[in-house]
Amino acid sequence: MQGKAENHFDYTLMAPGPVNLHPKVREILAHPMIHHRTPEFDKILAQALKRLKIVFQTEQPVYALSSTGSGGMEVLLVNTLSPGDSILVVNSGKFGERWAEMARTFGVQVDELKITWGQAVTPEHIAEKLKTKTYHAVLTQACETSTGVLHPIQKLGAVIKNYQHTLFLVDGITALGAVPLPMDEWSIDGLVGGSQKAFMLPTGMSFVSFSKKAHARFEHAKIPKFYFDIRKEIAANAKGETFFSSNVSLIKALNYVLAEIESAGLAPLFKTIQRRADFVAYLMETLGLSSYAAVKSASLTAVALPNSTDGQKLRELMEVDFNLTVMGGQDQAKGKIIRIGHMGYIQDKDQMHLATALYHSLQKLNMTPSISFIDFQTQMKNWLAQN
Amino acid sequence: MQGKAENHFDYTLMAPGPVNLHPKVREILAHPMIHHRTPEFDKILAQALKRLKIVFQTEQPVYALSSTGSGGMEVLLVNTLSPGDSILVVNSGKFGERWAEMARTFGVQVDELKITWGQAVTPEHIAEKLKTKTYHAVLTQACETSTGVLHPIQKLGAVIKNYQHTLFLVDGITALGAVPLPMDEWSIDGLVGGSQKAFMLPTGMSFVSFSKKAHARFEHAKIPKFYFDIRKEIAANAKGETFFSSNVSLIKALNYVLAEIESAGLAPLFKTIQRRADFVAYLMETLGLSSYAAVKSASLTAVALPNSTDGQKLRELMEVDFNLTVMGGQDQAKGKIIRIGHMGYIQDKDQMHLATALYHSLQKLNMTPSISFIDFQTQMKNWLAQN
Repeated sequence: MQGKAENHFDYTLMAPGPVNLHPKVREILAHPMIHHRTPEFDKILAQALKRLKIVFQTEQPVYALSSTGSGGMEVLLVNTLSPGDSILVVNSGKFGERWAEMARTFGVQVDELKITWGQAVTPEHIAEKLKTKTYHAVLTQACETSTGVLHPIQKLGAVIKNYQHTLFLVDGITALGAVPLPMDEWSIDGLVGGSQKAFMLPTGMSFVSFSKKAHARFEHAKIPKFYFDIRKEIAANAKGETFFSSNVSLIKALNYVLAEIESAGLAPLFKTIQRRADFVAYLMETLGLSSYAAVKSASLTAVALPNSTDGQKLRELMEVDFNLTVMGGQDQAKGKIIRIGHMGYIQDKDQMHLATALYHSLQKLNMTPSISFIDFQTQMKNWLAQN
Repeated sequence: MQGKAENHFDYTLMAPGPVNLHPKVREILAHPMIHHRTPEFDKILAQALKRLKIVFQTEQPVYALSSTGSGGMEVLLVNTLSPGDSILVVNSGKFGERWAEMARTFGVQVDELKITWGQAVTPEHIAEKLKTKTYHAVLTQACETSTGVLHPIQKLGAVIKNYQHTLFLVDGITALGAVPLPMDEWSIDGLVGGSQKAFMLPTGMSFVSFSKKAHARFEHAKIPKFYFDIRKEIAANAKGETFFSSNVSLIKALNYVLAEIESAGLAPLFKTIQRRADFVAYLMETLGLSSYAAVKSASLTAVALPNSTDGQKLRELMEVDFNLTVMGGQDQAKGKIIRIGHMGYIQDKDQMHLATALYHSLQKLNMTPSISFIDFQTQMKNWLAQN
């Protein structure tokens, strides 16, 4: 679809979101529309909302909203904070930056903990900050999509939970369902996921949940809000409805994905995604490439490129010659990395296609790998057969 | 799908949104996902945004956002108003009420022009109000979904345009694409549509446009906003992107629907929808039923029921016995009306099914029509053949 006439490959999507859809999801999206005020949909909504708790690993309710992930980030923020409140935002890339900007827009005082791109925040960073000032909340990404870094959420939660006035709000958009992120056990007070990531759905929904500690804030949070006022959704969910028109198609498909997760458990899903990350790690090692992220998330790999290799060109070559979409870098990482997603419906043949595309595209950019293509391919095949 | 084992009918959706999907839309929704940062999607987005202008009948840009229609209503409001501003809201039903509540949430001073449910506002109503006070905006529905009323938007626009400090913001969610609503010609300053209505798509997107008069307000509008800040979307659209992750599936399907409209023109679409409304008018007349709305919108018909007939029961019977979803009344109209949608993919066989379902369900509720079923059916068939 993407490529020019020269290539004859089916389109392969290997971005950190949106991801390739599960075939059954595609089938469900093609179903005739049903109304959201019908017994059939009532049942689907109730099941989906209950099953979302499995992925969030929480006893608290999870809400399903019509917005992108960023809308869900706003939901966490505007329902727990007031203008003038002070928060600490871990800014380790594009999405940390976004959360800081968003909070400032609503009159919240933001202290940014700036982390070098590619690095992870440490619990010590946070502990130090919390000693100096009372923060109403600490905000971080679990996985920063722009760098592929996985932050130590469990350890951060263990620090923050000791501060009774401080909430721990986590953007789990590129992490939920891909890596363990047990909300209750890790003392996360607000957690957001996005449909187009490990949920294997199209873009269009965000999923959010709040701890009891966060819930107690709702009545005091003075940022004005209507569409993102979670109290409206809570009241509607209590009646078995969504407050606004239900996103029927996505909720039906979501319920299918969650039913699969319910029946198999989260562990196999994490394992599948980790295996894809491990394969790409092996692929990088074989080609003499390294990780951009100091601590890698299983959800995506940010591949650091030598200075002589233009990441934008590499990405374009892979798209034009191999009909394969991976992402490039953003802002300060532009041209320096490519980002390969491990979520969604990806098969071993797609992984082999990625390996082939990367090998030949690097070669075309005069960064010829030291291993011959035939040996390379054999090694990759063997890895997939043995792991 | 909906019904119990006793009925053997395919599901028929005849609500005022969501609507039955076009078969081609369903096919597109089942396509494999493509990334939103690809040349293929760039082209689709550019086409869709341009084609949206055809439905809005405007020279101004139209923006496509990931939210329900209510999110789009919020976009119109928060981008043009500041806390303390005064507005006049036409409250003629559920959605007028919602807009008033939304505006108050953001600190806007709201004067409500309360219209009896089922009645339309008049230009005189508005003219009178505008003489007494300077309003920053007048807000109204084009069609109030809860009552089926069509308000005289053209005439209201002609009054409001004389006030240089007053914007005319119109909720066209249940009207755009179903009835004429030429934004520029009728001096509408902000207009919002929703994907699950005449656009024949699933719920999940809102479409908004602003006049130049409204655009000039953006820099002065002080209501805090991030997700719904239209300036972000304007900047992103200028680069051929959406600011947040693109709703790829819906935008692809939208582009198909709009291409059809572009090639056939808006007139045949309006005519098709009007014919469905006319059929239901004839059906009501034949069964001795009348319209709840004093001025009917072609997008839906609100059928007034005799006091002895419980609208909730009627709706349920049609669903259980005929696997057909129409909507009941809300709030003060609960039990007193049923609402039949005329948008989306509806064929004559669906209209016949509606007629049959209504006849038999009324009979079951002891409101036996004076005409025999066989004569009734013949008349309905003849109408469809002749119109």
